[in-house]
Amino acid sequence: MNASALKIGTSHPRGDAVAKAAGTERYAADLYPQGCLWAGAVRSHQACGRIISIDTTAAAALPGVVKVLTAADVVASNRQGIIHKDMPVLCDDLVRYCGDPLALVLAETKEALQRGMSAVQLQLEPLPGLFDLDSALAADAPLIHEDKPGNLLAQASICKGTGLDGFDACSVVVEGSFSTPVQAHAFLETESGVARLEEDGGLLMEVSTQSPFRDRFEISHALGIPWGKIRIVAPSLGGGFGGKDGATVQCLLGLAAQHADGRWVRMQWDREESFKAGYKRHACRMEYKLGAAADGTLQALHAKLWYDTGAYAHLGAEVMELGMEHAGGPYRIPHTLIEGWCVYTNNPTAGAMRAFGVCQATFGFESMMDLLAAKLGMDPLELRLKNALVRGDENCAGMRLTTSTGIKTCLEQLQQHPFWQDREVWKAASPAYKKRGIGLASVFNAAGYGGGVRDAATAKIELTPEGTFLIHNAVTDMGQGNSSAFLQIAGHILSQDASRVLLKQPDTRTAYPSGSSSAGRTTYTFGKALITATEELKARLLNWAGMILFLQDNDGLELQPGRVLHQPSQKEVSLVALAGYMQPEERVCLGQYVAPTCKEVPPTAKGFFIGFPHVIFGYGAHLVRLEVDSLTGQLTVCDYLAVTDGGRVLNPGMFDQQVQGGVAQGLGYALMEDFTVRDGVVKTPDFATYLIPGSLDIPEIISIAAQGEPEETGPFGMKGIGEVAMNGPLPAVANAVADACGVRLCHGPLTPQRVLAGVKG
Amino acid sequence: MNASALKIGTSHPRGDAVAKAAGTERYAADLYPQGCLWAGAVRSHQACGRIISIDTTAAAALPGVVKVLTAADVVASNRQGIIHKDMPVLCDDLVRYCGDPLALVLAETKEALQRGMSAVQLQLEPLPGLFDLDSALAADAPLIHEDKPGNLLAQASICKGTGLDGFDACSVVVEGSFSTPVQAHAFLETESGVARLEEDGGLLMEVSTQSPFRDRFEISHALGIPWGKIRIVAPSLGGGFGGKDGATVQCLLGLAAQHADGRWVRMQWDREESFKAGYKRHACRMEYKLGAAADGTLQALHAKLWYDTGAYAHLGAEVMELGMEHAGGPYRIPHTLIEGWCVYTNNPTAGAMRAFGVCQATFGFESMMDLLAAKLGMDPLELRLKNALVRGDENCAGMRLTTSTGIKTCLEQLQQHPFWQDREVWKAASPAYKKRGIGLASVFNAAGYGGGVRDAATAKIELTPEGTFLIHNAVTDMGQGNSSAFLQIAGHILSQDASRVLLKQPDTRTAYPSGSSSAGRTTYTFGKALITATEELKARLLNWAGMILFLQDNDGLELQPGRVLHQPSQKEVSLVALAGYMQPEERVCLGQYVAPTCKEVPPTAKGFFIGFPHVIFGYGAHLVRLEVDSLTGQLTVCDYLAVTDGGRVLNPGMFDQQVQGGVAQGLGYALMEDFTVRDGVVKTPDFATYLIPGSLDIPEIISIAAQGEPEETGPFGMKGIGEVAMNGPLPAVANAVADACGVRLCHGPLTPQRVLAGVKG
Repeated sequence: MNASALKIGTSHPRGDAVAKAAGTERYAADLYPQGCLWAGAVRSHQACGRIISIDTTAAAALPGVVKVLTAADVVASNRQGIIHKDMPVLCDDLVRYCGDPLALVLAETKEALQRGMSAVQLQLEPLPGLFDLDSALAADAPLIHEDKPGNLLAQASICKGTGLDGFDACSVVVEGSFSTPVQAHAFLETESGVARLEEDGGLLMEVSTQSPFRDRFEISHALGIPWGKIRIVAPSLGGGFGGKDGATVQCLLGLAAQHADGRWVRMQWDREESFKAGYKRHACRMEYKLGAAADGTLQALHAKLWYDTGAYAHLGAEVMELGMEHAGGPYRIPHTLIEGWCVYTNNPTAGAMRAFGVCQATFGFESMMDLLAAKLGMDPLELRLKNALVRGDENCAGMRLTTSTGIKTCLEQLQQHPFWQDREVWKAASPAYKKRGIGLASVFNAAGYGGGVRDAATAKIELTPEGTFLIHNAVTDMGQGNSSAFLQIAGHILSQDASRVLLKQPDTRTAYPSGSSSAGRTTYTFGKALITATEELKARLLNWAGMILFLQDNDGLELQPGRVLHQPSQKEVSLVALAGYMQPEERVCLGQYVAPTCKEVPPTAKGFFIGFPHVIFGYGAHLVRLEVDSLTGQLTVCDYLAVTDGGRVLNPGMFDQQVQGGVAQGLGYALMEDFTVRDGVVKTPDFATYLIPGSLDIPEIISIAAQGEPEETGPFGMKGIGEVAMNGPLPAVANAVADACGVRLCHGPLTPQRVLAGVKG
Repeated sequence: MNASALKIGTSHPRGDAVAKAAGTERYAADLYPQGCLWAGAVRSHQACGRIISIDTTAAAALPGVVKVLTAADVVASNRQGIIHKDMPVLCDDLVRYCGDPLALVLAETKEALQRGMSAVQLQLEPLPGLFDLDSALAADAPLIHEDKPGNLLAQASICKGTGLDGFDACSVVVEGSFSTPVQAHAFLETESGVARLEEDGGLLMEVSTQSPFRDRFEISHALGIPWGKIRIVAPSLGGGFGGKDGATVQCLLGLAAQHADGRWVRMQWDREESFKAGYKRHACRMEYKLGAAADGTLQALHAKLWYDTGAYAHLGAEVMELGMEHAGGPYRIPHTLIEGWCVYTNNPTAGAMRAFGVCQATFGFESMMDLLAAKLGMDPLELRLKNALVRGDENCAGMRLTTSTGIKTCLEQLQQHPFWQDREVWKAASPAYKKRGIGLASVFNAAGYGGGVRDAATAKIELTPEGTFLIHNAVTDMGQGNSSAFLQIAGHILSQDASRVLLKQPDTRTAYPSGSSSAGRTTYTFGKALITATEELKARLLNWAGMILFLQDNDGLELQPGRVLHQPSQKEVSLVALAGYMQPEERVCLGQYVAPTCKEVPPTAKGFFIGFPHVIFGYGAHLVRLEVDSLTGQLTVCDYLAVTDGGRVLNPGMFDQQVQGGVAQGLGYALMEDFTVRDGVVKTPDFATYLIPGSLDIPEIISIAAQGEPEETGPFGMKGIGEVAMNGPLPAVANAVADACGVRLCHGPLTPQRVLAGVKG
């Protein structure tokens, strides 16, 4: 244990490092309550059809099978969904994707469960499926949801300045079409949890979730249990990335618990079920047109974005909206028209994923910037610097930036780096049969929920009777390390070493509603609330110490590890002693924070439901150096540089890890991850077919924190950077390939096949 | 009930008005727990003596007598006292005043108690008593406490500027000697309480006290019960005025409870016992010398103050110190020497009383101001105005004033009043055999404990499940109305009407240490803490309402009686509903406050223990119009005007009541209250012999709030005025008598006999 006090601005080891390295961290997937039942969903093997019958008789008669439930057993709405509640817990009429759940089996053992699931007899009438955007948008397409004409979950636009008329004044115009694939979160821990009905009729669930407080509403709406009687406990997640934002196993588990006579029920999706039934990143098709003056000043943008949300809404509309808000990059563009469509298909459901709608658009736009630079004959970095947003500018969505805006600083720091300064030397030293290229991408990503959504947190910290401090985290730690940031914040304020600050992961009974673990918001929002709570606790401790030490005021009193010291007299009182004096209610402090919102919403957006506009953004400038194998099309990423504006850095080590993790996931997206669905059927159901980068596929990623301004609204000046780094690799790699070979690749991922085809074509 | 919200700055009825008027308010003296024992102290009838024996045998054998305890039954120190712990719970060797307790009888009934007390056989060896200052200070005087040479509890001085050398430059010097009598608090409810030992060995006591939290330390020290196991409940007091600041019945009751086998024990002093054994105002002797330049600018002061503290310390030293700090009035005097002695005698014990040491010195000093004005041939108001302190000045103790200093404003407002403007006309219209006079007094009084003593509070407020607000008062309401101020503060912040804000009187188990109800500090200090707690609760309510109403932020949310309303949408949520959403711990808010202290203590004071200097003072300018009956010496106070600087007025009605109460008590002190002790024996043991003014003795008292500056440090700008008004009547009346008859009376009270003797002499 570290005996010196935790300090903001310093790298401290993660609070969970030892437990995770030693394998003692307990995830939801590790829970096997004694005597628990096993629950599993019987899923459709067809992508689209009408339910004729579900015969559960044979299954229910099997030894070890306890119950077989169907939609008829759901007493309430049987619909889940975070905002748009269109997804049945168990299908009651139609199946809309290959994997839609039809029956829920409860069994005494895993083996009995599997036998029971196999014995459920499904009879479905096949219906024609819609598996691509064009089919779904066709005028005569059948409706996947009756109340959604045109199979459109959402359709919206942002129009700023004179919109398309802005092109009239452009000297140079470029156009391009792009597409990006489905991406799976590929977390280590698949969707899992345990639940049971308590004696008072309440539901207790311990589950791998990014949104314990909000899950209660989904469960309540679907199953009819009052949300106040639902208690969700959320241990550390073995990865989330958005895929556990909203109910996955929750409603099925809740339904199982309702029929388990008070016994624990356990559900865990295997990888195949996770890939089939879990939410994924939206595939996206884009058409871009970008115009500039002869000197490179951006003038006009037209962007059209189509997102394939699959069979159900999840957060598809919001993903589309956020992509649109970012569709013009972190640049000044006076005239924009950005159009978006979020389209239902009979593909598996897409939903939230790190860089939520934005990494798709960034691929399109940052490719366009290089196309424009080439056409202008300008240096691509110069073009970006010339147009980079500064505080006070309006962004592409018409939102005036009033918070820290560090893209220019990032680009300037990148410009000074040897990778950029020595680029021609490096490229000239290319080995045989390899072509070297350097690619850039400017990235930005909103932090927080955006307009119309309350982005708030209530933190709780207590002094334990043992004289240690316990933070009641309310925003799950999916591995990003927010827990460690909270330990560091509290330790810093209380001047305590790591051994004296503890953290309990979310429990809706003992913590307070603080929103989901998403949108780069947790350290920012909960951190601010925690500062308030912790400062209050510090004040109480100093007051008690002042009383005990008979001091007229708090002058000269200092918190130190384990004690309060009065410097002038060197008298002290231990935290254990103070805890003994204090009433239990006095040892607990709460703090609240409501994140800032835009008070004057620009009138640019039409068709937006909620989540527009955002007021705080993280920024970054990325550079990749790569080699293209001219014989195989194989790309070798040699070096990666990410300069990131996240305001003040609380913990340099964890800041770099966040950036590196985002870049690594982005390189997977850029180079190989290609979640393939044909006629609604997942063709990459496992890690043998769905490839993600291993450690040898990833270069050393150099993370540099921008020496910019702190974000004044944030805790100690920070802002969230959990997502921004994800946006850079695909466009940077595409730009580097173009730099190396003169070939513009517009469809991700940039597999050797596509590169080779491009080089050859 | 008032349906409109409580507002600061407005007169609202007192929260306790109805209960007190209807007789339903429950005081400690009203408690008769079922099956309780009665406890009573057997007291010495001699003022000074050595205990030879205490024979309890006969008493203990009487029917109905349960126990007879003596000092031998006290297991711990057997000494009580707030700071100087020199007072035995039961005398173990010496008796030091006529009334010292020797035995404690527990009986089944009040009658059995009285029989038992009468049957205790005391054998004392008489010792010579010291009943006046001169005897006690004589070189060969026996020592009342062995460890106090010279019978001095305390001796101190304040020397500022060049001290006595300041007289060298004076054109005019006046001298005078003054004395003031003992005054009894004469509260309606005498000292009383009930107690019992709980199963865990803890002591539960419900008692009439101004200092529930501190009482625990006195009891613990005397009786050996850990203070953390002592719970004090303090209902509304039927008056306190300082006389219930510190243990009265507490240690005797605690001792009784220790021997009552878990039964409730009740103790209530009758008036005679209260007058004998309760604390009283110190009699004081003063010698004053005051010098000024020819233009009336004050130059030098020499004051010598002797306080008779009686047999035990109580707060005698602190009373003396505060008197000394105020001995030069609210004026600029560059050179001062102020000397003080607090002297033990064998008189009954003196202690805290409203205007604690100050009203004595004010009599002396304000008389000196009129003597000086006369000698200078100056208008007495002009002299006061010329020398009145303003912020930034040093006061007579050398303390630079950094807070609101309104004496000049008070004097200027008094100057504009018709009583002053038309004084000559009024005086000329004197009836036959009457002489009319007008007298002035400038007054000031420190608020708060003063240097070296932590003056802090922790307030607690909760939202009840019923949607009302409950304040946990921690500073007893002795009738001054601080509870009502707290209701008003919380109601104002929460925009609630009187029916929705409730208050629970102090209970050390559920409220938090907040000091005593004394020193004009409760509304100031606890009020500040309450503002913090209430604002936090308001923030929580708005946050919850924002969540429930799905608002992006708190803009447009308003607390209203019983609900939170979102003005823009007119959506609302009731407080009952919010209470249902909130966890119990979330419905409770605490707030702390530590009052400001002087960071650079002037080096003027020598021999001060604690309580010097003060940083906040209330001020006032008083004027009395009276008639002197030349035949009988009877004084008729015709009119009284008090202009008071208490910062911002929270409740005009209650502000005036505080001033009027102080003036009324001051007029009693000025005109008639004369607690007489001869050879240690109280000669005024009841209200037939100790006269206090009735309503017909008191004129209409006009209270005007100074239109001065608010006290920035105080709650909504207020500062305490519980004591300041007490200081004016005696000097103002003496000055008016001098104005009427040309006779300077220097010894209080100004009874007809003394007036007549003065007029005739």
